[in-house]
Amino acid sequence: MSDLLPFAVTARDGAARAGRLDTAHGAALTPAFMPVGTAATVKAAHPEAVAASGAEIILANTYHLMLRPGAERLARLGGLHRFMNWSGPILTDSGGFQVMSLASLREIGEDGVAFRSHLDGSRHDLSPERCIEIQHLLGADIAMVLDECTPFPATEAEAGHSMRLSLRWAARCRAAYRERPGHGLFGIVQGSVYPTLRSESAAGLRAIGFDGYALGGLAVGESGAQRLAMIEHAVPELPPERPRYLMGVGKPQDIVAAVARGIDLFDCVLPTRSGRNGQAFSRHGPINLRNARHAEDPRPLDQHCACPACRRYSRAYLHHLVVAKEILAAMLLTQHNLHYYGALMRDLRMAIRAGDLAAFVTRFEGEQAAGDIPPL
Amino acid sequence: MSDLLPFAVTARDGAARAGRLDTAHGAALTPAFMPVGTAATVKAAHPEAVAASGAEIILANTYHLMLRPGAERLARLGGLHRFMNWSGPILTDSGGFQVMSLASLREIGEDGVAFRSHLDGSRHDLSPERCIEIQHLLGADIAMVLDECTPFPATEAEAGHSMRLSLRWAARCRAAYRERPGHGLFGIVQGSVYPTLRSESAAGLRAIGFDGYALGGLAVGESGAQRLAMIEHAVPELPPERPRYLMGVGKPQDIVAAVARGIDLFDCVLPTRSGRNGQAFSRHGPINLRNARHAEDPRPLDQHCACPACRRYSRAYLHHLVVAKEILAAMLLTQHNLHYYGALMRDLRMAIRAGDLAAFVTRFEGEQAAGDIPPL
Repeated sequence: MSDLLPFAVTARDGAARAGRLDTAHGAALTPAFMPVGTAATVKAAHPEAVAASGAEIILANTYHLMLRPGAERLARLGGLHRFMNWSGPILTDSGGFQVMSLASLREIGEDGVAFRSHLDGSRHDLSPERCIEIQHLLGADIAMVLDECTPFPATEAEAGHSMRLSLRWAARCRAAYRERPGHGLFGIVQGSVYPTLRSESAAGLRAIGFDGYALGGLAVGESGAQRLAMIEHAVPELPPERPRYLMGVGKPQDIVAAVARGIDLFDCVLPTRSGRNGQAFSRHGPINLRNARHAEDPRPLDQHCACPACRRYSRAYLHHLVVAKEILAAMLLTQHNLHYYGALMRDLRMAIRAGDLAAFVTRFEGEQAAGDIPPL
Repeated sequence: MSDLLPFAVTARDGAARAGRLDTAHGAALTPAFMPVGTAATVKAAHPEAVAASGAEIILANTYHLMLRPGAERLARLGGLHRFMNWSGPILTDSGGFQVMSLASLREIGEDGVAFRSHLDGSRHDLSPERCIEIQHLLGADIAMVLDECTPFPATEAEAGHSMRLSLRWAARCRAAYRERPGHGLFGIVQGSVYPTLRSESAAGLRAIGFDGYALGGLAVGESGAQRLAMIEHAVPELPPERPRYLMGVGKPQDIVAAVARGIDLFDCVLPTRSGRNGQAFSRHGPINLRNARHAEDPRPLDQHCACPACRRYSRAYLHHLVVAKEILAAMLLTQHNLHYYGALMRDLRMAIRAGDLAAFVTRFEGEQAAGDIPPL
């Protein structure tokens, strides 16, 4: 615990803060959004395009990579950074969430989880110790503790039972984790929508001591109000000098609301998945390029956006590509959406540094509510 | 006929020649391979990547574009070049081949072909005059005459009947075509595998007069020997000062053989389609990245290749992407394959200029026959 992952809070505005995370693979300014590179690729994007979008840190999925190509194989190939040609920081999740959502025949016990691969039905075990070993083999800059993703909804008793199992696993992960400069291990606060459980989880994790603290078990079906209540409740119970990560969130408005409440890190498949489905994010809210209103519109998706899709192509062309199911549609809209998220995070950091976040949030919400520009 | 599309033969080596085609959208050195941009996109490739591969001219499909987004709509949007962000030369085919291979309920008559769209069953007519009008609306630098794609095999009587219909359509296309500087219309030699019919077709087209001459109705099922025999027979019957285009060909070895016999232009979906199917071209022949032999191979696909896939990634990573059906696999392998074709055409041009083509062909065939490097 002597060499915590370097993290500096450089500005505060209310509960929000701007900061800087320094890893063995370089820095990431916070608040930061991490594009999801599930299977060692941010889908439909060259890593150069991911970096050009403003993203400085990405997430990769332990569950997918342990199954294919396999953690030991990835280590023999020099680790995830070299494999996927991403030289910046990488955070890997623990695999716990995907075991619950993708794998079959799951058996959870005190020692970990056994499951069958969704790819080929092969049998695998994931214990806290193996989870950490895999993330070491991948070469993660930031590793996550194995947790049980508590189903939603859950009774307080169920959520408490699950959270305490995750706490015991967290202690075992910490013990198994090898400290190295520029690397870190994050704990995960669980407890569903129950404030007392969230408090108990946060206290337990603080007692163990982590490089950063995540809020887990959210974005799983609870209401937006419940999620914000949990964030507001949990954030003050986390060490103020350590990074805070809201897992799996989310929509632009959810990110803005969470940043205002003190969250530093985010990940979500939304910009990439939406890009593959013909949906673009914009300052005026989401735009469905499949809609026939765009079929003859020569204007760019967003005249204020500097991404290649907006600088070089019309809405009419993007609509055509989406309707024709062309791969270039996924490529251009993914890049646009990552660019949108990158610009949003940069704007949030600037607003916090300027002490101007409240005005930014008001302007942001007004623009989002205004909706897309009218058809020509 | 006063302003033929500028084409200069700058070097000869046996029957082969190197040259330069000058269009309203810039020049293309020949022999040239045209990547296929069926639906106004070279599939899975940014136009910048297509240009970086060495391609100077691309092909787009009239059939696909007349159905979606539609020729008049494309014209209102400023034409194909602006729509798809390709500033170089574009050749459009006539749509005849795709009507035969994709559309349903085809009815061919003296006036043209009526058919139903493979997309929505809608009814369309394609006459020689409409075919030229569509290619004008698209803004093609090089347009092709409407021809009937003679089925293979066909009797000499069937092939003759079909070829003469195509000749009458060719004359109507020429009459409908509006001459503009830097633009041109190519005739298409038909006649299946019958030398006398090929001669009759070539003579008929010469009498009408075109900016260039294509060989059609090949790469449709005939043997390689039959194809080469047709090329060797037809090339001497075409005007030596005009470009010659072998439609729909092909594999690297087929291109090399045809260049040696005097062909200047090629198009084929092979590099792009293969790229989406996990197959890479290399100096040592095709490589199937799906094969498990690559799963832990840290070497590049081709150590002599300067494309991004070869400079930045291992065979192991490309194998992983192919097996995981990741879009990035299609992106990287498409770019590699286009790069391979671009380099092959550049090498062919250099060999012709150096008077060294025979030695190049011998070396090329030896390398191709040698096969891929052995596994580690």
